[in-house]
Amino acid sequence: MGTVQSFRALCDRPKNTNVRISLPAVCFVWQIAMIILFGVFIRYNPESDAHWQDYRKQNNISSNIENDFYYRYPSFQDVHVMIFVGFGFLMTFLKRYSFGAVGFNFLVAAFAIQWALLMQGWFHSLDYTDGKIKIGVENLINADFCAASCLIAYGAVLGKVSPVQLLVMTLFEVTLYAVEEYIILNLIHAKDAGGSMVIHTFGAYFGLTISWMLYRPNLDQSSRLQGSVYHSDVFAMIGTLFLWMFWPSFNSAISEHGDGQHRAAINTYLSLAASVLTAAAISSVCQKHGKLDMVHIQNSTLAGGVAVGTAAEFMLMPYGSLIVGFCCGIISTLGYVFLTPLLEKHLKIHDTCGIHNLHAMPGVLGGIVGAVTAACATDSVYSAEGLTAMFNPNGYFESVIPSKQGGLQAAGLCVALCFGVGGGIIVGFILRLPIWGDPADENCYDDETYWEVPEDEESIPPILQYNNHMRNKDLIQFQHGAAQSIDLDLD
Amino acid sequence: MGTVQSFRALCDRPKNTNVRISLPAVCFVWQIAMIILFGVFIRYNPESDAHWQDYRKQNNISSNIENDFYYRYPSFQDVHVMIFVGFGFLMTFLKRYSFGAVGFNFLVAAFAIQWALLMQGWFHSLDYTDGKIKIGVENLINADFCAASCLIAYGAVLGKVSPVQLLVMTLFEVTLYAVEEYIILNLIHAKDAGGSMVIHTFGAYFGLTISWMLYRPNLDQSSRLQGSVYHSDVFAMIGTLFLWMFWPSFNSAISEHGDGQHRAAINTYLSLAASVLTAAAISSVCQKHGKLDMVHIQNSTLAGGVAVGTAAEFMLMPYGSLIVGFCCGIISTLGYVFLTPLLEKHLKIHDTCGIHNLHAMPGVLGGIVGAVTAACATDSVYSAEGLTAMFNPNGYFESVIPSKQGGLQAAGLCVALCFGVGGGIIVGFILRLPIWGDPADENCYDDETYWEVPEDEESIPPILQYNNHMRNKDLIQFQHGAAQSIDLDLD
Amino acid sequence: MGTVQSFRALCDRPKNTNVRISLPAVCFVWQIAMIILFGVFIRYNPESDAHWQDYRKQNNISSNIENDFYYRYPSFQDVHVMIFVGFGFLMTFLKRYSFGAVGFNFLVAAFAIQWALLMQGWFHSLDYTDGKIKIGVENLINADFCAASCLIAYGAVLGKVSPVQLLVMTLFEVTLYAVEEYIILNLIHAKDAGGSMVIHTFGAYFGLTISWMLYRPNLDQSSRLQGSVYHSDVFAMIGTLFLWMFWPSFNSAISEHGDGQHRAAINTYLSLAASVLTAAAISSVCQKHGKLDMVHIQNSTLAGGVAVGTAAEFMLMPYGSLIVGFCCGIISTLGYVFLTPLLEKHLKIHDTCGIHNLHAMPGVLGGIVGAVTAACATDSVYSAEGLTAMFNPNGYFESVIPSKQGGLQAAGLCVALCFGVGGGIIVGFILRLPIWGDPADENCYDDETYWEVPEDEESIPPILQYNNHMRNKDLIQFQHGAAQSIDLDLD
Repeated sequence: MGTVQSFRALCDRPKNTNVRISLPAVCFVWQIAMIILFGVFIRYNPESDAHWQDYRKQNNISSNIENDFYYRYPSFQDVHVMIFVGFGFLMTFLKRYSFGAVGFNFLVAAFAIQWALLMQGWFHSLDYTDGKIKIGVENLINADFCAASCLIAYGAVLGKVSPVQLLVMTLFEVTLYAVEEYIILNLIHAKDAGGSMVIHTFGAYFGLTISWMLYRPNLDQSSRLQGSVYHSDVFAMIGTLFLWMFWPSFNSAISEHGDGQHRAAINTYLSLAASVLTAAAISSVCQKHGKLDMVHIQNSTLAGGVAVGTAAEFMLMPYGSLIVGFCCGIISTLGYVFLTPLLEKHLKIHDTCGIHNLHAMPGVLGGIVGAVTAACATDSVYSAEGLTAMFNPNGYFESVIPSKQGGLQAAGLCVALCFGVGGGIIVGFILRLPIWGDPADENCYDDETYWEVPEDEESIPPILQYNNHMRNKDLIQFQHGAAQSIDLDLD
Repeated sequence: MGTVQSFRALCDRPKNTNVRISLPAVCFVWQIAMIILFGVFIRYNPESDAHWQDYRKQNNISSNIENDFYYRYPSFQDVHVMIFVGFGFLMTFLKRYSFGAVGFNFLVAAFAIQWALLMQGWFHSLDYTDGKIKIGVENLINADFCAASCLIAYGAVLGKVSPVQLLVMTLFEVTLYAVEEYIILNLIHAKDAGGSMVIHTFGAYFGLTISWMLYRPNLDQSSRLQGSVYHSDVFAMIGTLFLWMFWPSFNSAISEHGDGQHRAAINTYLSLAASVLTAAAISSVCQKHGKLDMVHIQNSTLAGGVAVGTAAEFMLMPYGSLIVGFCCGIISTLGYVFLTPLLEKHLKIHDTCGIHNLHAMPGVLGGIVGAVTAACATDSVYSAEGLTAMFNPNGYFESVIPSKQGGLQAAGLCVALCFGVGGGIIVGFILRLPIWGDPADENCYDDETYWEVPEDEESIPPILQYNNHMRNKDLIQFQHGAAQSIDLDLD
Repeated sequence: MGTVQSFRALCDRPKNTNVRISLPAVCFVWQIAMIILFGVFIRYNPESDAHWQDYRKQNNISSNIENDFYYRYPSFQDVHVMIFVGFGFLMTFLKRYSFGAVGFNFLVAAFAIQWALLMQGWFHSLDYTDGKIKIGVENLINADFCAASCLIAYGAVLGKVSPVQLLVMTLFEVTLYAVEEYIILNLIHAKDAGGSMVIHTFGAYFGLTISWMLYRPNLDQSSRLQGSVYHSDVFAMIGTLFLWMFWPSFNSAISEHGDGQHRAAINTYLSLAASVLTAAAISSVCQKHGKLDMVHIQNSTLAGGVAVGTAAEFMLMPYGSLIVGFCCGIISTLGYVFLTPLLEKHLKIHDTCGIHNLHAMPGVLGGIVGAVTAACATDSVYSAEGLTAMFNPNGYFESVIPSKQGGLQAAGLCVALCFGVGGGIIVGFILRLPIWGDPADENCYDDETYWEVPEDEESIPPILQYNNHMRNKDLIQFQHGAAQSIDLDLD
């Protein structure tokens, strides 16, 4: 910790948040790099290439509707909405950080999907005959998944980092994600259709570790901006609802054609429904007057979707899905009430959006549920063919031994955790360098730092307009003063 | 009426809106009951079960794309958006009830879909060989439909009930819905793809009757909160537009594969387009200066979708759809202008969202349109095979006699009306019990009652912040006083 | 120009914005005309008609899933969201014109799609055996495309026209669109799947020309309402994101089944992602402190989707798509910074939403990209069959000569430009007639003119409520006065 401390001291210089050179430079360099790498490596796969009609004839595919596009495109679009509107608006809850929430979310995701297409392509879609990555709609979905992981991590540091920091973080996270995904899915042969482990556990622990590395002891200087206002909470519900509604598509998007996608959608639908009821119940019981807290409704209602990710395509059974959602709604809400303050106080992890409660804990739980469900798989429940199709689609093993598969799932969970924490420490060090234009403690959670914010003439009363150069404490004193003077007038 | 009066007196005790025990208790008990009942009764159907590949071979199904999932899942997701974002945001128009609108909508729908899967399953999807309900994507759509019916009823009592009351109301309404649906669709053999009768007429009259049972003579005490503000009207337009755009999916979601779904989508698209023009026309002509009223644009533009529900899959013809939309846009808007005030004044039915204009009247009209269109069906228009596929898919009758089918449709409409009004009276009695934590008259339409509402520092001027313990009349007096004192200063 | 000047003088009479007679009259006349014309001309096509089962047998179609509905309906719904939520909310950025933005957008689009079904039907879907237009899901998509063109034009005149003017403009624009589309696609045989030329270039130049014809030299009288406020910018991001996310569906909605739709979606996805990074980069570099401007993020991020429209289904290659997006993000953002002020100052074209930067320039670029890509097509890249399927699907030519196709594409672009500018001049003259109820210069960008606007009690401080009959300059003076008086009290 001594090294960390001295490193911190080194980094605590006056902040310069002018990103006029660094942000455009990073965007241009990376976008040009993407163009070059795409030019060298990326081509259409047989289903999106103009030779598709030839391919159909050669492979005896009866109809255009058998193109993977028609199996997966509706789910892809739902996932796309989750990434850009869902995550983006979920983070607009802060009173003066809506531009940053939805705008940086947009920027990060647009970069992540490009880099993910390359990184994931090298691992999963490389055609060894010509050394090219061949992409189709499934690659687009996987790229969106990888972006989701980056946006989860963004949730932990929301309002405390610069856009340049975010892009650097994204570059490394996508790289790590592709490696971790390859290890879990292709080397360990764990299954993770909805990404409880690969996306949520990894992304959340990565983000939390970075938040720990970037801990700001004096963040209370911007505490006046850490809450929500009425309208910002309604905006956040747009994000919540689009995530909630389309989560069945998320968990089923890359499942097996046919029953796999069908079952994953049903399981997720049920788990999410159960989460809503238990999240509301715990939210009410934890408040003195039984009032509901928007933070819990915005976040904990989604926990069921995270936790059912790995097991969504398994024969979890409808009641199993409900149980998963039931437990996660409780755990996640209790996390917001009790754990988040403890994490900040004792572990010095400040978690703006509470991703520990929404992604980390439910993700780990989802990994465990997946391991148990896989270990309990039987021939009678799955049918012999179904069991092979589920756990051994590419013939990795001679035969499927469910208990062994359960062990592989558990191993996958450990890999995700290690990559999250380990990667977070390394990338956190890089992000602490004082060159990325991060905001000073008193400018956190404030769109003014990185955005041209319109003068909000309507909602600022005239007295304040006259004095809008005053800030913070001066302002409050002035308010009290003004009110007193008027009080006197009334006498 | 004497009994009702004395019962009312009994119920008019001081209100306790603390739901800290009752809300969590209801949520937990019901969610646990759901888990147990799902465990006993609900399994995957052949298209979502891991035995699907076996099933395919046995039934000679050529491809995975023939799984019902691919026919219906895109429509299901659109319906899902309508239920959670559409209905939720449509109700956010009140200035301080957006949390309640979108949050309780979420809670009610999440509970309704679970209980509906069971209730509808017993009637429609019970496999008599093993006593299990077998669910697939069509069940999810039907559960969402049932939730729609509950949310329509919520529209009538929006802002005037507690979340516990809502959940109790939903429990009973789902139960009644499943019975009513079974009678109309399976016993009477009426057709109702888009639910003009089953969903809208039933839901609306159920809600209106409950609103009548819960009539509050002194509701003007919260009249200051009954209107909208600028931003809340824009939020409500999100709901309106998602309902409007996805209504073609709603009406076609469970139609017959092929031309049935295709035609239902076209008819609904056209009917809705016509509604927009006539709603705008009547809205303008009814105002002194020809200005448009947001309430009409938010609601009456949707009436065409309601009214074309039953007949959507029939050969209504494109111009027929336009005529339905044309009439409904007019009727619904006139309802808002003239009928809603009368209903409240003379029948003591207070209808917060105006569901009588959006769902009740267009629903009844839709039932009539359906009956007429069915009665006019001919072999030449439908083809012999088409007529059988439409009106006699399961061979209920020896041959299809259109005029008889018209009568069955009319009978179905009557059943929906009777269930709505009758069920509403019974459930209304239950909801009047003084144990559900409903708000006092002066606390209606106020999120403060059941939600932790953030201090809205930005939009409250400093003078009010200093005095934010003052309420209502005191506040207004104070405002005048303050303004006067400043006026004096200006002299 | 002399004639234009005297005509202008003629039109500059005191404005009467009461549309109580004209708006309902126009809506009713046109809706009734639609019903009559639909009754005479429009019927279901074989895929949406009840004879579909007969048709299937006759044409040996193996399954219901081969119905075009299942190929195109998910894309159609995405396009539908773009038209109504995407365009509607994109225009809500003005502080007091959100009702007009989203409401008139709704009205215009609902009318445009009906008239487009007829106009496009006569040109493209007329069944010469019975003189009827036969419609299916592809017609609905094309009608939505035509509505998009009208809404682009609306962007140029947003806040400066009356709803009656808008409806008249839409009537003419749809008519011109159908003719222009027929010339480009059917006579010239250019390809334009995503409508860079047919939709965007035409719509944008049509709108800009009308804005020039309706130029208001004294528009600075409503300059206080020309900006955004914090929340209106967040609402606009809803529009931006739904446009951005669903643009792949827009460009692929009417592409060829199979690889055509698949490839168009991939190309658009990539081009849009690249636009986001370059738009953000240029936005930051053009501001003194490197801050991002919401106007650029809301609009220029979409330019890549416009510019890849024509070439989306071609073998543009993934890197080609990135290059298109890269360039358009730059050009569009630079347009907002430098060109828009010049256009207004020197050419007297006031462009409220900056459609010149978002639709006109990227649209022209898209046409050029399409021409170049078509001219470079080779047998080896497309396969012989693919080349024919792409450029000669109906056997217009004996053989496909790519360089000639490139020329045809360029000719198509010229036609779109001519129709846009020429049509705009003619329709602009009509719209200058002083009978359409357009607002006075000082009432532009103000919802009060055509909407019942709720009293915004919460965000108006009490002092202003007391004085809410004061307006504009009086108000500002009063504010200063009040603040001064309080300042004195504090001394």
